[in-house]
Amino acid sequence: MNGPKVLNFSAGPSKVPEEVLQIAQKELINYNEQGVSVMELSHRSKTFEKIIETAEKDLREILSIPDNYKVLFMQGGGTGIFAAVPLNFCPRLKECTADYVVTGSWSAKSAKEAEKYCKVNRVLPKADKYTTIPEKSEWKLDPNASYLYYCANETINGIEFHEVPEPLPNVPLVCDMSSNFLTRPVDVSKFGCIFAGAQKNVGIAGLVIAIVREDLLGKEADVCPSILSFKTMSDNKSLYNTPNCFAVYITGLCLKWIKANGGLKAMEERCITKSSLIYEIIDNSNGFFYSPIDKKHRSRVNLPFRIGGEKGDENLEKKFIEESTKQRMLQLKGHRSVGGLRASLFNAISVNETEILAQFMRKFQESNQSK
Amino acid sequence: MNGPKVLNFSAGPSKVPEEVLQIAQKELINYNEQGVSVMELSHRSKTFEKIIETAEKDLREILSIPDNYKVLFMQGGGTGIFAAVPLNFCPRLKECTADYVVTGSWSAKSAKEAEKYCKVNRVLPKADKYTTIPEKSEWKLDPNASYLYYCANETINGIEFHEVPEPLPNVPLVCDMSSNFLTRPVDVSKFGCIFAGAQKNVGIAGLVIAIVREDLLGKEADVCPSILSFKTMSDNKSLYNTPNCFAVYITGLCLKWIKANGGLKAMEERCITKSSLIYEIIDNSNGFFYSPIDKKHRSRVNLPFRIGGEKGDENLEKKFIEESTKQRMLQLKGHRSVGGLRASLFNAISVNETEILAQFMRKFQESNQSK
Repeated sequence: MNGPKVLNFSAGPSKVPEEVLQIAQKELINYNEQGVSVMELSHRSKTFEKIIETAEKDLREILSIPDNYKVLFMQGGGTGIFAAVPLNFCPRLKECTADYVVTGSWSAKSAKEAEKYCKVNRVLPKADKYTTIPEKSEWKLDPNASYLYYCANETINGIEFHEVPEPLPNVPLVCDMSSNFLTRPVDVSKFGCIFAGAQKNVGIAGLVIAIVREDLLGKEADVCPSILSFKTMSDNKSLYNTPNCFAVYITGLCLKWIKANGGLKAMEERCITKSSLIYEIIDNSNGFFYSPIDKKHRSRVNLPFRIGGEKGDENLEKKFIEESTKQRMLQLKGHRSVGGLRASLFNAISVNETEILAQFMRKFQESNQSK
Repeated sequence: MNGPKVLNFSAGPSKVPEEVLQIAQKELINYNEQGVSVMELSHRSKTFEKIIETAEKDLREILSIPDNYKVLFMQGGGTGIFAAVPLNFCPRLKECTADYVVTGSWSAKSAKEAEKYCKVNRVLPKADKYTTIPEKSEWKLDPNASYLYYCANETINGIEFHEVPEPLPNVPLVCDMSSNFLTRPVDVSKFGCIFAGAQKNVGIAGLVIAIVREDLLGKEADVCPSILSFKTMSDNKSLYNTPNCFAVYITGLCLKWIKANGGLKAMEERCITKSSLIYEIIDNSNGFFYSPIDKKHRSRVNLPFRIGGEKGDENLEKKFIEESTKQRMLQLKGHRSVGGLRASLFNAISVNETEILAQFMRKFQESNQSK
């Protein structure tokens, strides 16, 4: 490849830090002088055991995970955990009710999956589209809910919770943190369960990390597949069956990278700096760029926007994609369900890369706004 | 690493062909001149679409898969499919019965998982240990079974079906082919469903391939998680949610390698040559080496054996492991549930590598047998 570096603004799978890729490439055929690739290691070997244990240790350190929480490395992605949550926390299935805070496509999808297993109470008033988080006073919580579920950041819609919602007493809080996992410090002790696909901020596709409070284990329904049982996975240290070994290894490298780059405080600062660069351009564009999201709930990691107002000028948006692609900025197209444009600024995206995008946006406006 | 090449006889994850690792390493940071890694590609990108479509095309060609079969790239491993099989083929769950041919640890585990969902009929007489496949006349098949399930090769026990068992009329045949998948030609049209973890003969951990006859789709039970629904996966060309993209890519490379190396006929010949080398030593060792398995059902890919007769001489076996490890032969220890030794000779293991093991075994016997 010649020419400028590619800037990958994909919403996931997404950019992996250069340093991680370089290490992975260097040791791909001969890991740690073992003469074999990580891909070829038995998951029961001492070498792989060390990889998965170190990854857990580093994650516990970065996120200050209390001792009464289990860390699980699972397969099946966030979508697998959408089923696992009711299967693990609603022992009597349809006799149980779970509260779902639906703020976008992913929480909606999760609620739909949960309906296979339990009664789902959608706590927010029904909305035509997802652009805000209604005030807590409008939430209809069930005091007997098996859990309260929300998605900390809606990747498609660009809505982020900047505070952890408080559940009713004795209702465990369950959070899909896939797209803003490890982008800010989080008080894990507020949660019953946190899960996150690795392919956005801490690795590659095919690995989902679940953090589960110990006392919630062992209540799964009879029909819970073993691979989705938090108890089974916990009892076997994520090695009940063969895990996605290579993805665990890459996550391990990403965790080292996060530590070397200042941990979650630094990740949060980077996030704010990066997203502010783009939002400032949007907000100062006199309506040329348009963000549909309520300012106080705007995502710092997935920034959907339009050109030419709420409905978007599709010709200009197409031109934006064409020109940015020419300049080697990839995946700036919005999700097909909402249209428009979207920049995803996960952990691996640098401030400098975001500045290049910001500059491009500024120039694009100058060249294309009606005189 | 200095010294002789490592020989990796692991039962899985296991050796990946050198040529595949070299390609993966070369293009790890810059795939196909795209300026990004395969790991960073959106699963909805044209580039990844081509990877997964090519993998499917090559698999269809290698295995002569008829058009009325779907090829699915899924997560959760064989263990995930243990649950998926009854969930997809027993719509009324506990009202349905499934026939299980239990010939070893893996089919036993699969039958146990199935008991969560349906009535399980174990068709073979109960055995103390797994060393043979009882004659067909002893099988108690249920004419109303939702399917007949068997494991084509028991990785731990070393028992392989050399012929495809014939089910009763209108009973679909379901086969776990994880450890001998793509090691011999197979008439796919005899099956309702074949599945195989990729990490033995055609790639790395975290990917399981399912081949399902079209007319069996869409009958899944209400409680089937989306990620385990063959219909959902088929309707979405394995992209319902983010797949294990990197593993799909590695499988694609392994499939090209199988094609370049003569396809399934050649893989079968290699398998026979390699396993015969080892079995000949065992059979001509005057009882120094011992194979517990009925000769006509011996596996060509997982060869468990003992030193010093049926119960094994644990000191000699320990010495065998120590000395072979010194000579850079890895993972020759038998599974902890059966003890002893085991050589796994999957597709990526060459005849030459097997000869080195054979020679080592011969020398070990010379040096260690009682005079």
